[in-house]
Amino acid sequence: MTTAPVDVDSARRDYAALVGRGLSLDITRGKPSPRQLDLSADLLTLPNGRYKAEDGTDTRNYGGGAKGLPELRRVFAEALQVPVDQLLAVGNSSLELMHDAVVQSLLSVLPGGERRWADEPRVAMLCPVPGYDRHFHLAQRFGIELIQVPMTEAGPDMDVVERLVAEDAGIKGIWCVPKYSNPTGSTFSDDTVRRLAGMATAAPDFRIFWDNAYAVHHLTDDEPVLADVLALCAEAGNADRAFVFGSTSKITLAGAGVGFFGASAANIAWWSGLVAKRTIGPDKVNQLRHALFLKDADGVRAHMRKHAEILAPKFAAVDRILTEELGGSGLASWTRPAGGYFITLTAPEGTAKEIVRLAKEAGVALTPAGATHPYGDDPADATIRIAPSFPEIGELEEAVRGLVVCLRLAVAERA
Amino acid sequence: MTTAPVDVDSARRDYAALVGRGLSLDITRGKPSPRQLDLSADLLTLPNGRYKAEDGTDTRNYGGGAKGLPELRRVFAEALQVPVDQLLAVGNSSLELMHDAVVQSLLSVLPGGERRWADEPRVAMLCPVPGYDRHFHLAQRFGIELIQVPMTEAGPDMDVVERLVAEDAGIKGIWCVPKYSNPTGSTFSDDTVRRLAGMATAAPDFRIFWDNAYAVHHLTDDEPVLADVLALCAEAGNADRAFVFGSTSKITLAGAGVGFFGASAANIAWWSGLVAKRTIGPDKVNQLRHALFLKDADGVRAHMRKHAEILAPKFAAVDRILTEELGGSGLASWTRPAGGYFITLTAPEGTAKEIVRLAKEAGVALTPAGATHPYGDDPADATIRIAPSFPEIGELEEAVRGLVVCLRLAVAERA
Repeated sequence: MTTAPVDVDSARRDYAALVGRGLSLDITRGKPSPRQLDLSADLLTLPNGRYKAEDGTDTRNYGGGAKGLPELRRVFAEALQVPVDQLLAVGNSSLELMHDAVVQSLLSVLPGGERRWADEPRVAMLCPVPGYDRHFHLAQRFGIELIQVPMTEAGPDMDVVERLVAEDAGIKGIWCVPKYSNPTGSTFSDDTVRRLAGMATAAPDFRIFWDNAYAVHHLTDDEPVLADVLALCAEAGNADRAFVFGSTSKITLAGAGVGFFGASAANIAWWSGLVAKRTIGPDKVNQLRHALFLKDADGVRAHMRKHAEILAPKFAAVDRILTEELGGSGLASWTRPAGGYFITLTAPEGTAKEIVRLAKEAGVALTPAGATHPYGDDPADATIRIAPSFPEIGELEEAVRGLVVCLRLAVAERA
Repeated sequence: MTTAPVDVDSARRDYAALVGRGLSLDITRGKPSPRQLDLSADLLTLPNGRYKAEDGTDTRNYGGGAKGLPELRRVFAEALQVPVDQLLAVGNSSLELMHDAVVQSLLSVLPGGERRWADEPRVAMLCPVPGYDRHFHLAQRFGIELIQVPMTEAGPDMDVVERLVAEDAGIKGIWCVPKYSNPTGSTFSDDTVRRLAGMATAAPDFRIFWDNAYAVHHLTDDEPVLADVLALCAEAGNADRAFVFGSTSKITLAGAGVGFFGASAANIAWWSGLVAKRTIGPDKVNQLRHALFLKDADGVRAHMRKHAEILAPKFAAVDRILTEELGGSGLASWTRPAGGYFITLTAPEGTAKEIVRLAKEAGVALTPAGATHPYGDDPADATIRIAPSFPEIGELEEAVRGLVVCLRLAVAERA
């Protein structure tokens, strides 16, 4: 791809005009829009006087077990590819479950492990990049070393992953968003999942942190089927290798939803024994509310199609504008995800920070450049994450056109 | 008090008759009864289509800060004696907040501390006994040493506490249920709170874990006013000493409620910085639901009077039966709490385990003897916790009469 030259004067004029418009637009965060939240309006009146779970448990009281309501776990077992018995419904988000999985691993010996991570001389985790900043921050907070691994369209570069984990017993885990990855939108291939499940690791207590945040978040009818990580791990003799996370955050209400944790029976026993000291049980009323609202896996599918009807035109608009403005210019490439919440724009090397700075000054808020990489450090300074979900389409279009103006100026000034 | 002799034969006959009735009764747990939960029936339809917080935040979405909704924190600031700015509304219970406070203290240096608790050669906590088993279990799980301190009617024996914390830098904290204590029902005196706030501690990062679980849980109109621990700590130059916990678990719905954490500004900053890595925010819809339902501190007071109308007759029934059956016998003493969820029965030394065993065989489930003490070890083997809240009054009376039969037999057999 050859790069078309950008005229500095016209780029400056365009940017001055952009600033002159005094915009205030925000495409930073993967937040559902109010129209998407309206799809779950029934949750604001449910459970509508009911309070008994299907097994007769009074959801308003203590008791009923720490696993969460069976009727809700059943709804998500298929989407998350976890047997119901090994799937817990707990908390209001998956982020806190990932955090707690790290905490429990630091403070208690994992199945297969020899000592607590806190007692290891060094704990490191692999971070496919670009990736999700909150994964990196929560690990970094505990002094865990973050090691970058390149993402491909089929998931992390497995040649690199296999080599690192085989050599280095300090590497205890890998962060994965296996479907419609944040932020590239790619889905791990069967071969990638099989290699993750089967690879030799120097650490006996290596864990895949499988953040299946976008399991049912399709944008098109082309719905890739993710390989079953728990089954493949078991098949390869590494049954305890994967921790599976999910939530209803971008299905129903963000923050007022339900988190899920799935793993091998041994991992679930380990987790449950520890977490029993922390909680008498999850918010079962909210779980009943969700079970009544979503009903079953087909209910989730039907509900997610309504989300797609709202989201797909926004993703299409971003792609259309980028194609109109930058197509064939060689100035940038971008992803065309079939699901999830993000588009990754790859700008010329060394320009992403400047683009984001220029956009900010022009009233267009973007995720900080570098946020997609551990320690906020994108070595190529090229990755920009676009979150099309929250703004209405007119504002989104304006924001993306503004972003293009900033990209052109950054490239022109650098030349 | 002199102990009346118990006739073995009649005690055995009474016990055989009790067993013959094939009871199945449970007075183990401090659970609200269904009638109490019915008081919060409106929560099962609220927020009834509303979703905007008073500051305009869309409670259905991410955002709006990690402190929780101001309108709900305002409702509980008075009862928990924490300034609104220093009171967080988070999670669905206080137990998880206590757990996480211990975890964060293990993994991050506290304000005033020199190193993480995980890096200390030894971490111990004082446990006033009898006390709450879940406090003990969560600390024990992290290898924290538990040191017993006697409870008095005015709180922990402060002569013992002051001596221990002054000498031993390994003692990092004390568990307190300062009002209507679990299980004795006593409320800490002003002098106790003042001494806790002001005492010299060898550990610079000593913390009072102030589990104010029963702040508004009165059974009578005689409502003791607890001294303000945060204010007294600040006054004594130990502003960061107290962590305050509370929840709506026994106000609205157990498990589907809201937890609260209060502390000094420095502690709140410490906590918030760490917890921001764990969560994007609490379940704001549930917080809105609670704010709409309870309205303000007066709303809480009115609501708690309805609880008292249900609970007070149960506590009175236990006291009446114990007085009828054991009054003047010298065989036992028991507490007459003015609030909270428990009555402590003190049996003759060395009989509690046997009483609980006999009761279990007769179909009357009691909290395991020893559960009120760290490591399940009540050195006198004399403390039995009675939880009158859950059963309806007829069953409760039967259970307490059964307990008396078991007590008499255990005493007679031992003699």
